[in-house]
Amino acid sequence: PACPGRRLRGSGGALQPGLPLSGLSLQGEWFSKRSWRACCGLKRSRLKVRFCTNESQKSRGELVALLRRLGFDISQEEVTAPAPATCQVLEERGLRPHLLVHDGVRSEFDQIDQSNPNCVVLADAGESFSYQNMNKAFQTLMELENPVLISLGKGRYYKETSGLMLDVGAYMKALEYACGIEAEVVGKPSPEFFKSALQAMGVEAHQAIMIGDDIVGDVGGAQRCGMRALQVRTGKFRPSDEYHPEVKADGYVDNLAEAVDLLLQHADK
Amino acid sequence: PACPGRRLRGSGGALQPGLPLSGLSLQGEWFSKRSWRACCGLKRSRLKVRFCTNESQKSRGELVALLRRLGFDISQEEVTAPAPATCQVLEERGLRPHLLVHDGVRSEFDQIDQSNPNCVVLADAGESFSYQNMNKAFQTLMELENPVLISLGKGRYYKETSGLMLDVGAYMKALEYACGIEAEVVGKPSPEFFKSALQAMGVEAHQAIMIGDDIVGDVGGAQRCGMRALQVRTGKFRPSDEYHPEVKADGYVDNLAEAVDLLLQHADK
Repeated sequence: PACPGRRLRGSGGALQPGLPLSGLSLQGEWFSKRSWRACCGLKRSRLKVRFCTNESQKSRGELVALLRRLGFDISQEEVTAPAPATCQVLEERGLRPHLLVHDGVRSEFDQIDQSNPNCVVLADAGESFSYQNMNKAFQTLMELENPVLISLGKGRYYKETSGLMLDVGAYMKALEYACGIEAEVVGKPSPEFFKSALQAMGVEAHQAIMIGDDIVGDVGGAQRCGMRALQVRTGKFRPSDEYHPEVKADGYVDNLAEAVDLLLQHADK
Repeated sequence: PACPGRRLRGSGGALQPGLPLSGLSLQGEWFSKRSWRACCGLKRSRLKVRFCTNESQKSRGELVALLRRLGFDISQEEVTAPAPATCQVLEERGLRPHLLVHDGVRSEFDQIDQSNPNCVVLADAGESFSYQNMNKAFQTLMELENPVLISLGKGRYYKETSGLMLDVGAYMKALEYACGIEAEVVGKPSPEFFKSALQAMGVEAHQAIMIGDDIVGDVGGAQRCGMRALQVRTGKFRPSDEYHPEVKADGYVDNLAEAVDLLLQHADK
């Protein structure tokens, strides 16, 4: 087994010019100026970049506006996010959702018929994960002959300045157990979600590297799709991640800036 | 396989005088006057009766007071409930709980040291299952080197007049998933819990019959302990319970009164 904690594994000529790069976390230290400067360097390089996020408290428009205010040159077309992907699923299957989502992302569903719901869409609702709202979602599912629960991601928790916070995955498990059903996950680590990001970039999995702070959602998910993946030791990273029983990153870096420096060095060769 | 939906299975001389009877649900139709009259008849009979409840929103004192106001002759000593059983576990193992419980049951833990918590005790907290309270419990667990989560029952849901409501099991699953741990369950369907009720009555499992509305928690749990079990078609009962893939009741009755009538008929023989 590989030595835990080492830096980016030198993997020959795999890091080619034209290499796309995916990965974005909006929690914790990712916001540091140093990280964003590094990321800007990446965007100026010959590497393709795409932001693959499970952010589901904000619409894509709000997300991009926020990143732009932070000085990062990004457009909505460069973001792969769960809410638009979910709308596509709902339309394809004629599903009318009961939404248990954060108010910030509700506008993404404006064009979707929400009358007489025949499924529940769950996202990181934050404070809206009240007992009352959870019961309403539960009751909606229990009244359906074929209950369909769609979850925007299945993250266990994320890190805020105030500490670790429960993510949508915990509440997804609660509803799965109560209803005796299995949710359909849209977002990382769902293979379909990574594939749609690769497709949008027009590259193959082996040409791409994922950078993320979530050992299971980012690193494990990308690797199962045939991508390599780096874990940053920021955000929700915990030291025990480097000894994770199932997922082993292709490399560990102290922060996003270090990951980008390494990629640019390889890409220049 | 047995025909679903039929009435109490005639099982020879199994229903002896001296037969203890366990089972209590405080939800839904169990409160009907007819049911209580029947239950009073049971208490007057030669059968031993014990109330084996996962009720964890009320202290045993409050529970008994409520039943007494409803005209039922019962004492605290006849009730097997999760909170007192949990206190015993905490004391035996030197555990200091962070409580995520309903205010109604908090007094049961008055004698327990709750400073500097080294475990989390979860009960059906109802409206107190806020995002904030769930995060506090989650953070407490994540700060422990060996996180211990004790759950008072693991019910999926129960029935109130306003509809089906999520039970503690759903929130237990949420914390289990977020922390990557497995909870210890005190209450039905834990075998230890049924055994303590049998022990308190001084009878063997094969001499006892459980009556309950929960196909998994009441019927399945009791059967795994060697008891027979009837399911009543009231409370949280759903027609699909009679086709449950894993649990098959020894009999189905329309309500508690019918169950009691049957038991008394057999006991008189």
